[in-house]
Amino acid sequence: MKLIRFGEKNDERPGVIDSNGKIRDLSSYFQDYDKAFFLSDGLEKIKRLNYKSAPVIDEPVRIAPPIANVGKFICVGLNYADHAAESGMDVPDEPVLFMKATSSIVGPNDAVVLPPDSEKSDWEVELGVIIGKEAKYVSEEDAMDYVAGFCLINDLSERTYQLEKGGQWCKGKGCDTFAPMGPFMATADEVKEPNNLHIWLEVNGEIKQNGNTNTMVFTVPFLVHYISQFMSLQPGDVISTGTPPGVGLGMTPPQYLKEGDEMRLGIEGLGEQVQKVERYKK
Amino acid sequence: MKLIRFGEKNDERPGVIDSNGKIRDLSSYFQDYDKAFFLSDGLEKIKRLNYKSAPVIDEPVRIAPPIANVGKFICVGLNYADHAAESGMDVPDEPVLFMKATSSIVGPNDAVVLPPDSEKSDWEVELGVIIGKEAKYVSEEDAMDYVAGFCLINDLSERTYQLEKGGQWCKGKGCDTFAPMGPFMATADEVKEPNNLHIWLEVNGEIKQNGNTNTMVFTVPFLVHYISQFMSLQPGDVISTGTPPGVGLGMTPPQYLKEGDEMRLGIEGLGEQVQKVERYKK
Repeated sequence: MKLIRFGEKNDERPGVIDSNGKIRDLSSYFQDYDKAFFLSDGLEKIKRLNYKSAPVIDEPVRIAPPIANVGKFICVGLNYADHAAESGMDVPDEPVLFMKATSSIVGPNDAVVLPPDSEKSDWEVELGVIIGKEAKYVSEEDAMDYVAGFCLINDLSERTYQLEKGGQWCKGKGCDTFAPMGPFMATADEVKEPNNLHIWLEVNGEIKQNGNTNTMVFTVPFLVHYISQFMSLQPGDVISTGTPPGVGLGMTPPQYLKEGDEMRLGIEGLGEQVQKVERYKK
Repeated sequence: MKLIRFGEKNDERPGVIDSNGKIRDLSSYFQDYDKAFFLSDGLEKIKRLNYKSAPVIDEPVRIAPPIANVGKFICVGLNYADHAAESGMDVPDEPVLFMKATSSIVGPNDAVVLPPDSEKSDWEVELGVIIGKEAKYVSEEDAMDYVAGFCLINDLSERTYQLEKGGQWCKGKGCDTFAPMGPFMATADEVKEPNNLHIWLEVNGEIKQNGNTNTMVFTVPFLVHYISQFMSLQPGDVISTGTPPGVGLGMTPPQYLKEGDEMRLGIEGLGEQVQKVERYKK
């Protein structure tokens, strides 16, 4: 099942993609796809719902991020061995975690807006994991019981802010619009092998990242287990699991985004995103 | 004006502290103190309200964190020169930012629960700043227009997780219960000089931290301005502005929290917190 949200910002509605690939509006059944939805067994309710009577959305519509009011957004750094190498960093002994501001989340095809003085904004296609129930000190074996589903994420990164401003990475990760998410959340039962998915990104039609989640250093169940040792994962929380090689920082010379660029990215079974790059005007 | 939330977890109500120091229940006027409250001019509405007709809460009651559903929780590291020295780190050229999981937030007098294997959990009394309206690329001069108020925060930190597990600090900052917040938010007009407040913390009756916010390296308006260059600050977001000297990590030998300890902390004009230290049992 593919859960999707649609509509203009601050007026978004929950829906589902039917067997014909059409959006069905479920806003008369559910308020939104958020923590309360998961806590009230929303996923089970949708499975039992005969949504063939729900209205089809036929007109073109903005696609929103698939989850509303994400509580926290935890990212894994350097989780593909080749990407660590291109970043000039060692493969870590245990996962590198950082947090991304939830205010950076936008729809999958919304514009990415560079900060006024940004010169080193970079792309990172990633597999997102959405938590369905509270996970606290869970084992790797049980970890997938806590996963509601998966989605596509572009973990945009301003490298000057991330690496040259002192301290922690969050400065370069949380700029507004720096986390396109979606187009949908595929429920966990739809993604049989999360660690065997083609993952790719192109800029202006040129392929930059072209990998497979089977080269992740730490797998999805291990990451859920691992993070849950440090903090509880709550329903609606999102984990972004790291990016394969091919980011701009790793090129010789480095390549970064500029106004007018177009990114296109995808993961097998999780759809595609397209973003135009703009620049913030004060 | 002092905004307070009270009641058991998941059943918390908004209130205000009246001129006799009593809590008045405002749940018939406002749903909660959250982003929607600030966006709908809640602060102005409370100022105009004659809350002398609102019910007084006379029975003993749990105090909750003063803000519900905090969107993001941004912390400033090494923001007191003496604390940087005791941590063996240089005073930074620009603010060190990190993010704390919002799931770590609890009421001011709730128990602090050590993770099962934690050996280096430490205290940090801090001045919290609560954002009242969206701040994006704001000047230092205008920054205080975006501040709704101030509160007391204990930014607990597991030093092994923070410093010895590779990468970023968030691993040691986001454990559940590691952010007691409150007892109330004092509105900005009540705190004439946020950078001239006595700030202190004791453990088992022994004073550990005893400073003043006038030794902050970067002041409150500068921090709001600075952070807003990297990400928009949203209504209900919280900034924790760093801790004065006297944390356990800086002692010789280091001192850390153990089961049964009691922390008591306060900031001039922002009330006090008391926490019992427990340990999580799986």
